[in-house]
Amino acid sequence: MAYPTSIRIVDVSPRDGLQNVKQEVSTETKVALIHQLETAGVKDIEVASFVSPKWVPQMADASDVLNALDLKSSTNFTVLTPNAQGFERALACGVKEVAVFSAASESFTKKNTNCSIDESLKRIEDIIRPALDNNIRVRGYVSCVLGCPYDGDIPAEKVAYVTKTLIDMGCYEVSLGDTIGIGTPLKAKQMLEEVLKQTPAHQIGLHFHDTRGQALANLYACLEYGIASIDSSVAGLGGCPYAKGASGNVSTEDVVYMLHGMGIETGINLELLAKAGQYITHQIGVSNNSRIGNVLN
Amino acid sequence: MAYPTSIRIVDVSPRDGLQNVKQEVSTETKVALIHQLETAGVKDIEVASFVSPKWVPQMADASDVLNALDLKSSTNFTVLTPNAQGFERALACGVKEVAVFSAASESFTKKNTNCSIDESLKRIEDIIRPALDNNIRVRGYVSCVLGCPYDGDIPAEKVAYVTKTLIDMGCYEVSLGDTIGIGTPLKAKQMLEEVLKQTPAHQIGLHFHDTRGQALANLYACLEYGIASIDSSVAGLGGCPYAKGASGNVSTEDVVYMLHGMGIETGINLELLAKAGQYITHQIGVSNNSRIGNVLN
Repeated sequence: MAYPTSIRIVDVSPRDGLQNVKQEVSTETKVALIHQLETAGVKDIEVASFVSPKWVPQMADASDVLNALDLKSSTNFTVLTPNAQGFERALACGVKEVAVFSAASESFTKKNTNCSIDESLKRIEDIIRPALDNNIRVRGYVSCVLGCPYDGDIPAEKVAYVTKTLIDMGCYEVSLGDTIGIGTPLKAKQMLEEVLKQTPAHQIGLHFHDTRGQALANLYACLEYGIASIDSSVAGLGGCPYAKGASGNVSTEDVVYMLHGMGIETGINLELLAKAGQYITHQIGVSNNSRIGNVLN
Repeated sequence: MAYPTSIRIVDVSPRDGLQNVKQEVSTETKVALIHQLETAGVKDIEVASFVSPKWVPQMADASDVLNALDLKSSTNFTVLTPNAQGFERALACGVKEVAVFSAASESFTKKNTNCSIDESLKRIEDIIRPALDNNIRVRGYVSCVLGCPYDGDIPAEKVAYVTKTLIDMGCYEVSLGDTIGIGTPLKAKQMLEEVLKQTPAHQIGLHFHDTRGQALANLYACLEYGIASIDSSVAGLGGCPYAKGASGNVSTEDVVYMLHGMGIETGINLELLAKAGQYITHQIGVSNNSRIGNVLN
């Protein structure tokens, strides 16, 4: 039980943060945000989702975003590929990493992908195999690890099972998502302890939403187990900015401030990071959900 | 090292939450807020400050607020008394508890009360003595326990010294204030560990501001030491609602959600609490800084 000396921050704002924004965000704005994140020292950025524009119109320009980036740079650009068609599009762009997702909730999986968890894992295998054949790294997501909008409580054993299966399939890391931001610290610890019985901490990431203000406390509670990465979003972008309870992903700025205060390295410059958060919130006209972002700007 | 089974929530919104609100908040509105907090099950409420109206005009009606409350009820109404004159006014209202404050920073004390920390402690003694003679309980505050806007870092030994001195003078409990919301979890733990060398946990309260989004993580980090109380404010009221970095006191709603999720009792109904937060933010026209408050309303 020791805190890690450094943690990989995966900023997901260009994808998870923007995908539900109603007004169209131009490719130029997305690319400018990505460049500002790089300038701030963020080395891992989830830049797009190759999902059907029918479902997520905001991500229709995924290929354009990828084509505007230098995929040979030292930044790790990752993209979400929900299915084989999406993966083919990502492959055509020359991506080096893709992310696949399943969930620990049967109802959530049924509603989102119209299949069971095991069926979704089979579909994912059809993405992972060709990805690895093409030397593309694969990161896994497990949604609803601390609760589901339909099933309520989720057994930690289910989270551990889906996580281990994704690792066995070839994911280098699995990010555990509190998709609806419903968890509290002890529950987060208990869930993680169960997962760590089958999967080592250096292959685990945490993706917590701040819907109920708990994300940072939950992350802190889990840090002592030594995890590899934290997913977050500048300005706390994510969720639906126009709905009540607007806060979505935990704010990268607030996470970085906490980690640096604990002596955990991220390689990120907090002031430049806050500028990136202010830039995108001004561009799309939403409030900055980062507490410290509002102090620094 | 065990989490407490129950914690006393001291909602400070009528005082700390409103004192810096620019427009005048009517006595009726303050009393209505206090009654809504009581209805939600809050048993400890800081309702006013007997400070000179010259410095804090918003608290000019402190006596009116007190006179509108049933001081014989089971609710513990506490009031801030910065000096002997303020205490005399509180005494005249028949209060059962007063709060006094010092700080762990010499510069902060000099700027706020134009004296040294030791001089401020002597002045406080002139309040505590008559208070105890009149069977009035005294709660102590120590400001700047995790950092000072003028001195920067504050030695934990200084916090421990001021805390112990207030307890020795007769305070039943001392609330440790991260006045500028600058602390992070490990720093909060280290500070508390130093304080607990001289003062038992059952006499310690925590008063953390959420300026940089760290308050809940800091509270969680300290909970395992077993503390008596947490100061918080519905809707995260406090700080200056019109300044950048608006967030002030940690939101009572978010704290209660975390504690209940950890199996720690507060006696508070979260839904009714959220209604109280929504009521006051609507009344004074500021945004609701409680994450879960925005979900429940």
